[in-house]
Amino acid sequence: MIKQITIIGVGLIGGSFALALKKAGYPGKIVGTGRREESLQKALDLGVIDEYYLNMEQAVKKAELVLLAVPMSAMRTTLATIKNHLQPHAIVTDAGSSKVSFIRDAEQVFNDLTHVVPGHPIAGREKSGVSASLDNLFKGRRVILTPTEGSAELAVHSVTSLWEMTGAVVEIMAPEYHDQMLAATSHLPHVLAYSVVNTLADKYQADEIFRYGAGGFRDFTRIASGDPVMWRDICLANQGAILEILDAYQRNLCDIQTMIQNSDGEGLYKAFANSKKVRDHGCESDL
Amino acid sequence: MIKQITIIGVGLIGGSFALALKKAGYPGKIVGTGRREESLQKALDLGVIDEYYLNMEQAVKKAELVLLAVPMSAMRTTLATIKNHLQPHAIVTDAGSSKVSFIRDAEQVFNDLTHVVPGHPIAGREKSGVSASLDNLFKGRRVILTPTEGSAELAVHSVTSLWEMTGAVVEIMAPEYHDQMLAATSHLPHVLAYSVVNTLADKYQADEIFRYGAGGFRDFTRIASGDPVMWRDICLANQGAILEILDAYQRNLCDIQTMIQNSDGEGLYKAFANSKKVRDHGCESDL
Repeated sequence: MIKQITIIGVGLIGGSFALALKKAGYPGKIVGTGRREESLQKALDLGVIDEYYLNMEQAVKKAELVLLAVPMSAMRTTLATIKNHLQPHAIVTDAGSSKVSFIRDAEQVFNDLTHVVPGHPIAGREKSGVSASLDNLFKGRRVILTPTEGSAELAVHSVTSLWEMTGAVVEIMAPEYHDQMLAATSHLPHVLAYSVVNTLADKYQADEIFRYGAGGFRDFTRIASGDPVMWRDICLANQGAILEILDAYQRNLCDIQTMIQNSDGEGLYKAFANSKKVRDHGCESDL
Repeated sequence: MIKQITIIGVGLIGGSFALALKKAGYPGKIVGTGRREESLQKALDLGVIDEYYLNMEQAVKKAELVLLAVPMSAMRTTLATIKNHLQPHAIVTDAGSSKVSFIRDAEQVFNDLTHVVPGHPIAGREKSGVSASLDNLFKGRRVILTPTEGSAELAVHSVTSLWEMTGAVVEIMAPEYHDQMLAATSHLPHVLAYSVVNTLADKYQADEIFRYGAGGFRDFTRIASGDPVMWRDICLANQGAILEILDAYQRNLCDIQTMIQNSDGEGLYKAFANSKKVRDHGCESDL
C-alpha cells in the first residue's frame, strides 16, 4: 500500500482525487504542493490534504506516489524540479489531457520511465480551483492510463488501484490513440465552440447572440467558457492530433457547404440523418 | 377578439400554442388540421384542439386566424391550398424558422400581404409531435414577428396579443435581420454539430465517440439529434444567410488552425479568452 501521496497542483482535479481517496478510506497521508499558498491553505482547511509544502522538493521527498495535476505547459519544469528529490521507487503519474507530450517531457527529464505512469481522468466541471473539488467527481468516469513500454507493471497496478478507489473506470490505451480520441471528442469541439462564439461576436453584441439562440445555443457553446490558458496549452501539446481531425472536419464541413449552395436536399438529409443516428445510438449505449 | 383559430400542423409548436392559449383562458374555438388523422385525433383526445378536419379547406373556412406550423418546404403548397377558402379578413401567420422564404412563398400565392404576419417562436424541445406539447413551452421565450410593409397594423397587433397570452415576449424585426441572426445563433450551430458528429463517425464507432467526450461533448452535440427533415428544409430556405455566416466561420476557424500550426500560444489565448468573455457575459445578461 502506498503510504504517502503528494499532489502537485491541488485544484479541481488534484483536490477531487484526494477527497475521493479519503472518502474511500485511504489510510495514507496526502501532501499538497503548488505555487499558491492561499490555495494550499484552503485545501488544508477543507480537509482535502493532510499537510502542504510550498517547497516542491520537500513535498515529494517521502512520497511513494506523485500526481502532477498542473497545466500541460508546466509539466516539464515540474518534472525537472522534483527529479532529484524523489525516492528511488516513487511512482510519477499525471492528469494531463495530452499523453504523447507528457511522455516526451518525461523522457527528456528522466533516464528511464520505469516508474512513470501517464494518466488522464476524463472528468471536469465548469468551476475550477480546490473549492470546486468533489469527492464523487470521478465516480463512473473514465481514467485513461497510457503506460509506456518502460512502465513497470507494479506501478501501473498501483495507479490503477488508486483511481479505482475514487470510483473511476480505468482503461489502458496507447498514448497516440488517446491523443487522437481526445482530439476528436474534446479538443476539436472546444476549438469549434470558441471559434463560433468569436465569429458571432465579430458581427453581433454578446447579449443579442445569446438571446436568439435559445437553449440549444447555450448547450452548444457551454465549452467555450472553458479556461483559455488550459485550452491554449492543450492545443499546443496535442497539436498534431488536433490539426489532423480539424482538417477532416473542414473537409466534411465544405461538403455540407457545397450541398447548401447546390440546394442538394437529398445530400443534406442523408448527412443530418446519419449524424442523428450516430448521436442517438452513441448516447443511448453509454451512461 | 379572434373567435376561431385554425392550426395547420398540430405538432409540438402548434400543440403548445393551443395548450398555452387554453391555459390562459382563450375563449374562442381552436380547430386543427393536417395530413395525419392519427395525430389530429390525439390532439383532440389530449384536449389540445376543440375539433379537427382532415380537409384543410374546410378547416380554415371560419377561421379568423390561421397558424401554419408546417415544415418550411410545405409552406407554399399549404398557402396555395387554403388561399381561396379563407375569410376576407382572416389573418395568416406561421411558425417557420426562415422569414424571407416564407414571405417569398406568401407573395407568390397572395396578391397582397395585408393579413399576413410572418412569425417565429424561438422555442423547442428534443421531443416532437403533439404529445410533446407543453402549455408553458413559450413562457419567457422570444417570438419574432417580421411584418412586411403590407402587413396591417391590426393584424400584427392580434398576432402579438395571442403570443403574449402564451407567455412569450414578442419582438418585431426585419425579416432579413431575423434570418441572419437565426442563421448565426441556431442554423450555423446545427450544421456544425451535424458535421462534427459525421467527421468523428467516419473514423470511430459511435459508442467510442461518446465514451471519451465526457459531458461537454454530449451538450455540444445535443442539437445533432434534431429532426433531419426540418434542418434540411431550414438549410434550403435560409440558404443565403447560412452560407454567409458559414463563410465567416470558416475564415475564423482557419485563423485558429494557423495559430495551432504555428504554435502561436498568444494568439490562441487571446481568441479563447475573448470567446469565454463573450459567452460568460452573454449568458449572464439573459435568463
